[in-house]
Amino acid sequence: MEGIKTTAQKLFMSVSDKSFEGKIVMLSGWVRTNRDNGSIGFIELNDGSCFKNIQLVYTSSNDFIKLLSSVRTGACLSVSGEVVYTPQGKQPLEIKIKEAKLEGDILDDYPLQKKKHTFEFLRDIAHLRPRANTFNALFRVRNVLTMAIHHFFQDHDFMYVHTPIITTNDGEGAGNVFDVVTHDQKDENAFYGRKVNLTVTGQLHVEPFALAFRNVYTFGPVFRAEHSNTVRHASEFWMIEPEMAFTDLDGNMDVIEQCVKYCIKTLFDKCPDEMEFFNTMIDKTLIERLKHVYNSDFQRMTYTRAIEILTKAVEDGHKFENCDIKWGMDLLSEHERYITEQVVKGPVFLIDYPKEIKAFYMKENDDGKTVAACDLLVPAVGELVGGSQREERYDVLANKMEKMGIKDELDWYLDTRRYGGCVHSGFGIGFDRLLMYVTGMQNIRDVQPYPRTSNTIKY
Amino acid sequence: MEGIKTTAQKLFMSVSDKSFEGKIVMLSGWVRTNRDNGSIGFIELNDGSCFKNIQLVYTSSNDFIKLLSSVRTGACLSVSGEVVYTPQGKQPLEIKIKEAKLEGDILDDYPLQKKKHTFEFLRDIAHLRPRANTFNALFRVRNVLTMAIHHFFQDHDFMYVHTPIITTNDGEGAGNVFDVVTHDQKDENAFYGRKVNLTVTGQLHVEPFALAFRNVYTFGPVFRAEHSNTVRHASEFWMIEPEMAFTDLDGNMDVIEQCVKYCIKTLFDKCPDEMEFFNTMIDKTLIERLKHVYNSDFQRMTYTRAIEILTKAVEDGHKFENCDIKWGMDLLSEHERYITEQVVKGPVFLIDYPKEIKAFYMKENDDGKTVAACDLLVPAVGELVGGSQREERYDVLANKMEKMGIKDELDWYLDTRRYGGCVHSGFGIGFDRLLMYVTGMQNIRDVQPYPRTSNTIKY
Repeated sequence: MEGIKTTAQKLFMSVSDKSFEGKIVMLSGWVRTNRDNGSIGFIELNDGSCFKNIQLVYTSSNDFIKLLSSVRTGACLSVSGEVVYTPQGKQPLEIKIKEAKLEGDILDDYPLQKKKHTFEFLRDIAHLRPRANTFNALFRVRNVLTMAIHHFFQDHDFMYVHTPIITTNDGEGAGNVFDVVTHDQKDENAFYGRKVNLTVTGQLHVEPFALAFRNVYTFGPVFRAEHSNTVRHASEFWMIEPEMAFTDLDGNMDVIEQCVKYCIKTLFDKCPDEMEFFNTMIDKTLIERLKHVYNSDFQRMTYTRAIEILTKAVEDGHKFENCDIKWGMDLLSEHERYITEQVVKGPVFLIDYPKEIKAFYMKENDDGKTVAACDLLVPAVGELVGGSQREERYDVLANKMEKMGIKDELDWYLDTRRYGGCVHSGFGIGFDRLLMYVTGMQNIRDVQPYPRTSNTIKY
Repeated sequence: MEGIKTTAQKLFMSVSDKSFEGKIVMLSGWVRTNRDNGSIGFIELNDGSCFKNIQLVYTSSNDFIKLLSSVRTGACLSVSGEVVYTPQGKQPLEIKIKEAKLEGDILDDYPLQKKKHTFEFLRDIAHLRPRANTFNALFRVRNVLTMAIHHFFQDHDFMYVHTPIITTNDGEGAGNVFDVVTHDQKDENAFYGRKVNLTVTGQLHVEPFALAFRNVYTFGPVFRAEHSNTVRHASEFWMIEPEMAFTDLDGNMDVIEQCVKYCIKTLFDKCPDEMEFFNTMIDKTLIERLKHVYNSDFQRMTYTRAIEILTKAVEDGHKFENCDIKWGMDLLSEHERYITEQVVKGPVFLIDYPKEIKAFYMKENDDGKTVAACDLLVPAVGELVGGSQREERYDVLANKMEKMGIKDELDWYLDTRRYGGCVHSGFGIGFDRLLMYVTGMQNIRDVQPYPRTSNTIKY
């Protein structure tokens, strides 16, 4: 087979300068549809290089007509043919097939036939669903969003740190961790000399790096052995956890705001086709919603003020599932969404939460009741990012950890407050939830390559 | 404290245009040394923004002389002062301190005193060693190398895929996997309905994505529950596993060669200070060795030819630990190094290995005896990268898997050969070993933030 080896992406990019006009090219990809009208036939080929399919055309006089007219959805096909730009057509260009070769046929029971499939059905064939439009778009966006995160932090001089997956830190003994044991013997202490589990957060491990490299971040898998069978919980997911020395709560929120906006802008710039697809097929408010966030100044409101507002709303007759609003409570998603959607009508940081409902490492405010935490709430979702200034005072932190019974076990962590400590802050973004947010996908099982939720594992 | 907030990195970058000349700046960082000569004192401060320390100067008449003359190695210090460029000096600039503030003192038992420490000692304080010069340099290079990998593949239109950590695939039942169980009950099937373990490779999970997105790669943690207590084995490490549709063994080797060269070039471009440090302090042949690889055309040699050469070497009196060279054997490091160091005198791919010593998914060659595998050997190390063309023929692969008793369990993987399969290839690079190779570090425990090897876990 002769012709210039190329890809659909390169051909679509050539539409402006028509640099392939009349040239013979070679393409390989997977057949999405094949419509043979008798005298003329059209194959939509996706070659994996971009979201869009490329149109191949053949006539009944083609030397390879037997192969072309019978090639089925899902089959892998190579062709050579002439590039024809069709600026008036639905497609900006097409390839007039000269030669064709079947790289790989499909068995008759190919599960991804042309018809529309439910996400539930596709979940069960996670290894094949990347070939379905939604997942083709989704995993492209996942890739671009991953790199947007890296670029944002690298461009701001943050250093990436690979914090460990296997750890002795069990996330304050919450009990929702996976234990790691060796295959041959179930003695949990056998391999590492003590009980170990899968990490629930990289934060404690990355903080010491912030006290050497100033700005650092982790970005890797974390685990929760929760049986929560919800659309937002997975037992394995990726977390982004930046940590910044010499940065207080305000500086922390500045970085969160910049980071979220950078991610949104990057997707608009780099994935216009995919974002348009999600806006059309998944969530018709998606692009408007993201643009609104991008164009907003993120507001800041204390938890105490939010409680006042929610109390007033209940008095005025607003019906929450939980109407028992009182200072000290953990806000539910309905409360968070009321604040961001009804009150602020845009992104808002809630700050200064009661210390009892937040993590031990957060900096206690001078009021003695609250900590310098910040949760970013956004319309349509609620909480998207959580962060805090860290308690840098050794005595305050050590006392708290002593009371919780975690001081001995995390003594190494306290070293960051013993030896050259400083004001520092950080935050965490659940990457998979961020991806749900920017695509409008409603189930975390549909944004992970091989979703890991309780009671469903096949691969 | 007044002055322009800046970092050492920005100040060093201003040396060419002297844009901070005479300006008052503010810096925060950690004291590396403090030499007080009575009338004049010098503090070497590292603020985490770059590898180099910045020099702070104070005189006995300074308002903060008490603090400055007593501040100790490891303490966290903020200063404001005037920038003075000193092109004739050992340092290109210094800061004449005006004001100072102790951000965080150290306890007397600070383990990282100014003297030289052994790597073994530092391993035991993994959370503090980033402040030691070697590890300051090392983790910077780790970050840059990570991003070099991402940039190389992204620039070549590869899509990053997060393959799962928890999986049912136990790497062909080799038995060296970590099992994952829930905390509350030790029934191994409780959470996911079947036995699961930590992944040993992402390859099987990423191949289906190559058959949708053409060029893909994974880059994440993998695990081996081996008790091998060697300097090159860790039980948790990061692997890079690219997979390319429509690519044969030759194309695979082309990409490996480009990738290795790109990584080396990126480190020379982006980490000149760090690479110079490693060349001076760790391995005096490092830069020469890497430059030689960068400038070499990687050779290609069959395994069979290598066996002939090794046989001849033994006949000629060369003493290997294992002199019993025969076709079908697994080459040891000494054999690999002989080929790359003594024979080729540069990087070389060994190809077409006996099928019995290679993985089941590798493409069988027409000779019926060998598979289309390639191992990249480099001087001073031996094997650096391993890859292969994959067996795309359903029947051949299914038969092999049937014989191995893994056909049922990996039936989903066979779908990639049932439905629109094609010629494809891929490879794997152990990231931590690559980092050892490019820094000259000799122990894998010294290139990981929190090393995970058997019987040593603290954090």
